[in-house]
Amino acid sequence: VALGEFELIERYFRGLSDREGVLVGIGDDCAVVDWPAPLAISTDTLIAGVHFPAGMDPAAVGHRCLAVNLSDLAAMGAVPRGFTLALTLPAVDESWLAGFAQGLRDLARRFDVALIGGDTTRGELAVTITVIGEAGQASLVRSGATAGDGVYVSGALGGALAGLEAINLPQPSSVQSAWVSRFSHPQPRVELGQALVGIASAAIDLSDGLLADLGHLVRASGCGASLHLEQLPMFPGLTECYGDADALQRAVCGGDEYELCFTVSPDRVDELSVLATRLDLPLTQVGTITTGECVRVSWRGVDWQPQQAEGYAHFR
Amino acid sequence: VALGEFELIERYFRGLSDREGVLVGIGDDCAVVDWPAPLAISTDTLIAGVHFPAGMDPAAVGHRCLAVNLSDLAAMGAVPRGFTLALTLPAVDESWLAGFAQGLRDLARRFDVALIGGDTTRGELAVTITVIGEAGQASLVRSGATAGDGVYVSGALGGALAGLEAINLPQPSSVQSAWVSRFSHPQPRVELGQALVGIASAAIDLSDGLLADLGHLVRASGCGASLHLEQLPMFPGLTECYGDADALQRAVCGGDEYELCFTVSPDRVDELSVLATRLDLPLTQVGTITTGECVRVSWRGVDWQPQQAEGYAHFR
Repeated sequence: VALGEFELIERYFRGLSDREGVLVGIGDDCAVVDWPAPLAISTDTLIAGVHFPAGMDPAAVGHRCLAVNLSDLAAMGAVPRGFTLALTLPAVDESWLAGFAQGLRDLARRFDVALIGGDTTRGELAVTITVIGEAGQASLVRSGATAGDGVYVSGALGGALAGLEAINLPQPSSVQSAWVSRFSHPQPRVELGQALVGIASAAIDLSDGLLADLGHLVRASGCGASLHLEQLPMFPGLTECYGDADALQRAVCGGDEYELCFTVSPDRVDELSVLATRLDLPLTQVGTITTGECVRVSWRGVDWQPQQAEGYAHFR
Repeated sequence: VALGEFELIERYFRGLSDREGVLVGIGDDCAVVDWPAPLAISTDTLIAGVHFPAGMDPAAVGHRCLAVNLSDLAAMGAVPRGFTLALTLPAVDESWLAGFAQGLRDLARRFDVALIGGDTTRGELAVTITVIGEAGQASLVRSGATAGDGVYVSGALGGALAGLEAINLPQPSSVQSAWVSRFSHPQPRVELGQALVGIASAAIDLSDGLLADLGHLVRASGCGASLHLEQLPMFPGLTECYGDADALQRAVCGGDEYELCFTVSPDRVDELSVLATRLDLPLTQVGTITTGECVRVSWRGVDWQPQQAEGYAHFR
């Protein structure tokens, strides 16, 4: 079925399927890989008009589809090794495919992951990637947090949603351009995840928004959390542009950040500053795990209510 | 995103994720599996109105989506262990989901494969499954055929396309019903594939049609093949209903059979009859590998031309 397209994509990946441990690559009924167990595996689908704007730059689509999957490996502390690509396209469009494959390839090269197989089909534009990584002898999971642990996030928050809102501006400022690229080119925190194995008690990647994802983490851990918004690392320009309340709203409830949220027991905190320096990535405490059953949010000592419990849902 | 649906599906799979070697199952950022390397991995997308009729019974859709993926593992001789499920749905429909999950679950149970993760999204009905199996120390590949090997197929051919043509008949005969179930409930030849490791020189599963798939096999092997249609195992009722020419056309060019096509050196042929008896599955020689570069087809000593070079393409 439409093998032509997959061959085109393969051409852009020439050499990238020949990776250590790939015994049988693209072109047979299955790939056969000899990566040491245990393996971490995750699948995510991205649909045009739902998970990204329909007209988005194809290289950004390619980057983004792989990045959100690598982010799941990052949240487990796994080492990315390979991925399969299921691509549904409305029509053959060589220039779109070339851009898509380039965005995908550049990110795949950066993390040295092999394209090991795939399928192309005809329909509305949709991309399903399944990533596989080496999990090593210990993984980060969502369920390990205990009361008293600090809640941390990497990077700065709120830029992705602001970027989605600004994506079609004809003449974005440099601040707005940084938001847009935050949305279009998420940076999976793969090195951070690996470094947190043995340090963090629990971790999750921020795809649905800090409040929602921290909610997933505390439910899996059987605890609660107290979030202090005045400690939140805000993406540059948000507070100046939107004012405190709307900027915080974006940082707490906006999705698509692909930073890591993780918990660390107080006696391991010293290791984080060393790590932050080594990775050149802010790691900021934003709250504390509690014995409660939900996430309580405060801002300057006052309870804070988000505008929507489950976060913005523009493109979902 | 739309976690509700995935939780519903999970409910139908209760217990089926708790399989040996699944260290972390559904509900974290990744699954973590401890299956021994090397692993065989394959991805296939099925889209309503393209790969199956839009109104098809949801249990058949669930069966079919997993079956075509298991068939890829069968063609490598791998032992199925688990799969991820990316499901795109136009709307929440509990009764559809219940049927779909049941069809999927029944087949998953039969082969003892674990659902290890997935994603649900909103859009036109489409299903992408990624299967993972243990490849063992040797795999069947497409590229091992040499001149003089016999070309074999399992089962009987032509029923799937006839079934697709008959799927909406109001009062199908019992013969037509057998065709329809051949299309709606393909039987992946998992045991056969495993048994052929060490016996067959090359193998492929029949998804695009015998002529097209044998073409893939000989191209990968750098040889040709001579196909003798009078030896073809015809699905019951086809010749009587369509006459020789149209029945053969369906058997040679019709897709969606999910039988195995494989090649065996003449000195290993004795092992096949033992295997056919053990599996209660016909294994029929239909041709010979040649030193040529393409697949030549004859019927009763005369060259035979298919109506379309690449096979019927109704639902592709």
